[in-house]
Amino acid sequence: MSTETAATRRTTYTPDSLLEVAVAVFNERGYDGTSMEDLARAAGITKSSIYHHVKGKEELLERGVNRALDALNGSLDAMEALPDAGELDRVEQAVFRAVQILVEELPYVTLLLRVRGNTEAERAAQERRREIDRRLAGFVERAAAAGALRSDVEPHLASRLVFGMVNSVAEWYRPARDLAADDVAAAVTQLVFDGLRRR
Amino acid sequence: MSTETAATRRTTYTPDSLLEVAVAVFNERGYDGTSMEDLARAAGITKSSIYHHVKGKEELLERGVNRALDALNGSLDAMEALPDAGELDRVEQAVFRAVQILVEELPYVTLLLRVRGNTEAERAAQERRREIDRRLAGFVERAAAAGALRSDVEPHLASRLVFGMVNSVAEWYRPARDLAADDVAAAVTQLVFDGLRRR
Repeated sequence: MSTETAATRRTTYTPDSLLEVAVAVFNERGYDGTSMEDLARAAGITKSSIYHHVKGKEELLERGVNRALDALNGSLDAMEALPDAGELDRVEQAVFRAVQILVEELPYVTLLLRVRGNTEAERAAQERRREIDRRLAGFVERAAAAGALRSDVEPHLASRLVFGMVNSVAEWYRPARDLAADDVAAAVTQLVFDGLRRR
Repeated sequence: MSTETAATRRTTYTPDSLLEVAVAVFNERGYDGTSMEDLARAAGITKSSIYHHVKGKEELLERGVNRALDALNGSLDAMEALPDAGELDRVEQAVFRAVQILVEELPYVTLLLRVRGNTEAERAAQERRREIDRRLAGFVERAAAAGALRSDVEPHLASRLVFGMVNSVAEWYRPARDLAADDVAAAVTQLVFDGLRRR
C-alpha cells in the first residue's frame, strides 16, 4: 500500500515539485557533481521521465536560480518604485527583504550562491547574480552620495560586506530550528546599520 | 632549456610548495572532485612522487586546513592571554585579526570555508572549524555579559552574523586588485561595531 502510494506520487511530479527535488540534490552534491542519473534516483522516476519535463540539468539549474533571482529582482523593482523613501530607507529595506527572501527561498538562494562557474549554465547564473549585486551596490552608492552613510568605508566595499553578511545566513539557517525570517532579517538590519556596540 | 628548468623545478617540491599547488586545485575543482591524478597533473610530477611526500589527498586537506586553523587558534590564544583588554576590545581584535588572517592565508582559509562534509577528512575539518567558531562566539558572549554589546541581538546570532561578514571576504578578495589586508580588516571592524549609518 505504501509502495503503491509512493509509486503514485512518483508519477505525478509537477514542474515545481521536480525542481524542488533537483535543487536539493544540487545543493547536496554540487551542481557539477550531479548527473541526470542522480536526479532520476532522487526523484524515484526514470531519466526519460525527467526529460519529459526538462531538456536537461542545465534547465533545472536555470529555473532554480531564476526562482531566487526573480524574487530578489522583484523586491528591488518595488524599492526603486518607492518615490518617497529616503535613500537610507531604501538600503535598509533592501537588506531586510534580502534576508527574508533568503529564508523563504532558502534552497534556491543557496543554489544561486554556490554555483562555481565550471560550465556555461553556471557562468550564466553567476552573471545574473552579479547583476543583482550591482543593483544593490547602486542603492548603497546613492545613499552614500546623499550623505546618509558613514564616509570612511567606500560604498562598493560596504555593499560587498553588508550583503556578505546577508548571504552568510544561508550557511547555517535551518527553518525548523532557527528564528523566523522576520526576526533574522531584523537582527541583520540592526547590526548592519547600527553596529554591535552598545550606545 | 625552459623544459629543463621546469623539470628541475618539478622535482624539487617542498612540503609547503606541494601543499600550495594541492590547495589551489582543491579550491578550483572542489576537494571531493579532485583525484590524485589531478594533483599530479597540476604539480607536473607523478602520483608516486606525491606519495613520497604524503599518504594521500586526505593528508593534504588536513595540512591545508590546519594552516588556517593554526593561524586562527594562535590569534585567539593571544587574545585570551591579554589580561588588560576589555571584553569589547577582545572581540574587536578578534574580528580585525580574523580578516587579516583570511587575507594573508587566503587559499587555506578558503579551503577551510568550502569543505562540505562528504568524507571523513572533510567532517574532521568542519569539526575543527566549529571549535574556532565556538571560541569566537565565547568572546562575543563574554562581551555581551559585560554589557558592552547591544542587548537586542542575541550574542550567538550576533557572532554568526559578524563572522559571516568576515568569512564572506574570501568570496571576492583578490590580493592584486583589492585593498591591503589591514584596510579590509579596518573596514569590517568599523562596520561591525559602529554600523553603516552616518552619526
